[in-house]
Amino acid sequence: MDLKRYLQINQSLVEKTLAALLPGEHEPPQRLNQAIRHSLLGGGKRLRPVLVLACADAVGEIRERLLPFACGMECLHTYSLIHDDLPAMDNDDLRRGRPTCHKQFDEATAILAGDALLTFAFELASRPIQGVAPETVLLAVRQLAQDAGIFGMVGGQMMDLLAENRTVDMKELRGIHRLKTGALIRCACESGARLGGGSDGQIESLKNYGAAIGLAFQITDDLLDVTGDSRVMGKATGKDQINAKSTYPSLMGLDAARRLAEDQIDLALSHLDALPPSADPLRALARYITERTH
Amino acid sequence: MDLKRYLQINQSLVEKTLAALLPGEHEPPQRLNQAIRHSLLGGGKRLRPVLVLACADAVGEIRERLLPFACGMECLHTYSLIHDDLPAMDNDDLRRGRPTCHKQFDEATAILAGDALLTFAFELASRPIQGVAPETVLLAVRQLAQDAGIFGMVGGQMMDLLAENRTVDMKELRGIHRLKTGALIRCACESGARLGGGSDGQIESLKNYGAAIGLAFQITDDLLDVTGDSRVMGKATGKDQINAKSTYPSLMGLDAARRLAEDQIDLALSHLDALPPSADPLRALARYITERTH
Repeated sequence: MDLKRYLQINQSLVEKTLAALLPGEHEPPQRLNQAIRHSLLGGGKRLRPVLVLACADAVGEIRERLLPFACGMECLHTYSLIHDDLPAMDNDDLRRGRPTCHKQFDEATAILAGDALLTFAFELASRPIQGVAPETVLLAVRQLAQDAGIFGMVGGQMMDLLAENRTVDMKELRGIHRLKTGALIRCACESGARLGGGSDGQIESLKNYGAAIGLAFQITDDLLDVTGDSRVMGKATGKDQINAKSTYPSLMGLDAARRLAEDQIDLALSHLDALPPSADPLRALARYITERTH
Repeated sequence: MDLKRYLQINQSLVEKTLAALLPGEHEPPQRLNQAIRHSLLGGGKRLRPVLVLACADAVGEIRERLLPFACGMECLHTYSLIHDDLPAMDNDDLRRGRPTCHKQFDEATAILAGDALLTFAFELASRPIQGVAPETVLLAVRQLAQDAGIFGMVGGQMMDLLAENRTVDMKELRGIHRLKTGALIRCACESGARLGGGSDGQIESLKNYGAAIGLAFQITDDLLDVTGDSRVMGKATGKDQINAKSTYPSLMGLDAARRLAEDQIDLALSHLDALPPSADPLRALARYITERTH
C-alpha cells in the first residue's frame, strides 16, 4: 500500500473535479468566483473528500460516481476556513501558504465566498448518483447538514469561541472538537460508506473509524501548533499559546497528548478489522494522521 | 378571499413550526441558539414559506407536509439578512424593528448564526416528505441550492456590492435583482408547485408567477426606501440615496417604477389563468405585493 501515491492520485482527482464543477473565474460575478477559486483550489490535504472515496472503496466499487458529493465536502470545509479566518473570528492572514480570502480580496467578498461555497456544497451533495437510491442520497444530504450545522461544525466553532481566554477541562475540550472538526470527518466516512453501498454494520464501523481519526487529527493539529514549522504548514503556528487557548498539549502535556492520539489511531484501526483489503488505504491513512508534519 | 386572514393563519403556522423545529434557546451553544431565535423569530412577512404553501395549495393538497421545507426557505432568507446587515456589508443596526444580530450579539456570533441557518435550511429541505417521491425532494433541494448560491442569491448580492457607487443601467439592475431577491422568491413558488404534485405546466406557470412578483417586490422595496416610514418598516429608510445606489425609482422615476411594478403584477396574474380557485390566495398575494407599506 503506497499511501503517498494513493493520496496524490486522489488529491489530484478531487482538485481536477473541483476545478471542473466550479463556475469559471471569468464567469460573473468574477470577483466572487475568483475568491472561491483562490480559497478552494490553493492546495490542501483534501482529507474529507479522500475519506469519502476511500470509505466507498472499502465497501463497494462506485467511487467515481461519488466525486461530486466528495467535492461538496471539500467546499464545506473550505467555507468554514474562510469564515474562521475573518477578522471577527480568528483574524488570520495566512492559509494554505497563501493570503486568506479577506486579505487577498476583502471582508464582504470573503463572507459571500464562504456563503457561496456552503451553498454549493449542497448543490453538489444533492446531485443524483447513478446506482444509489434517491432516498439514500437524501439521507446523506440531511446527515451532512446535521454534521455541518448547529449540532456539528458550526456549533463546535461557536463553543470554541466561547471557550477563549478561559481554561476548559478535557471533557469540554473533547466535546468542542467532536463537533468542530470531528463531525465533518466522521460524516465523510459515514457518507462514503452509505453511498458506497455498505451494510448497516459497515456504515457504523466506518463512522466510528471517522470519529477516532477525527480526534487524532485534532490532537495532531494542536501538537503541530506547538512543534510545527509555519513554513511547512502554510499557516501561522504558536497561535494557541498567544490566544491562551486550551488544547490537548496545554491540558495534558505533549507526551500524553501524543499517546492519546496514538490510542485513537489504534481504536480507528480496530474498527476496520472486519473490512477487506480494499480498506487498506484507510488503514494507511489512519497511521498518516499522527505522522503528518502539516 | 380574505388575504389578511390567510396571511395571519399561515404566518402563525410558519412561526410556530419554526419555533418547534429550531433547537431551544437553552440548548448549547446557548449564545448561538439565542442569536438564531432573535433573528428568525422576530416577526417578518414570511413571504417565501407562505408562497411555498400557497403554490402547493394551488396545485395539490399536501401543504402541511411541506411545512419543514417551507420553513427552510425562511431560514435561508434570514441567514441572508443577518450576513447582509454585517458591518463589512450593509452595516445595518435595525432589522424587523429590532437590533440586527451583530448589534444584539457580536460579529462572530452573527456570522455563525447565519452559517447555522443556511445549513439548517438544507437540513429541513432534505427531510423526506410523505407522499412525495425522494427524487422529487432531491431535485427541490438541488434547485434551492442553485437559486440560493453563485447563480442565484449570493451571486446577486455580490453583483449588488460591486454596483455600489456607480450608476448601472436598467438591464444590469434587473439582472442583479433577478438573482438577489428574485431567485429565492421564484424558487419558493417552483418548489411549492413541484412538491405539491403540480404538472410540468403548472410548475412552469408558478415559476413564472414567482419571477414576476419577485421583480414587483423588489421595485416596491426600492419605492418604500424613498417613500416609506421607517417606524412602520422596522428598518432604516432613505439608505439607497445616501449610498448613491442605483434603484428603479432613481433610474426611471417614481411613477414609471410604480407602473413597472403594476405591469409585473398583471403579468404574474396572467400566469395563474389556467389554475383553479385554490390559486386565489396567490392572486390576492400578487396584488398585495405592490400595496404593502412595509
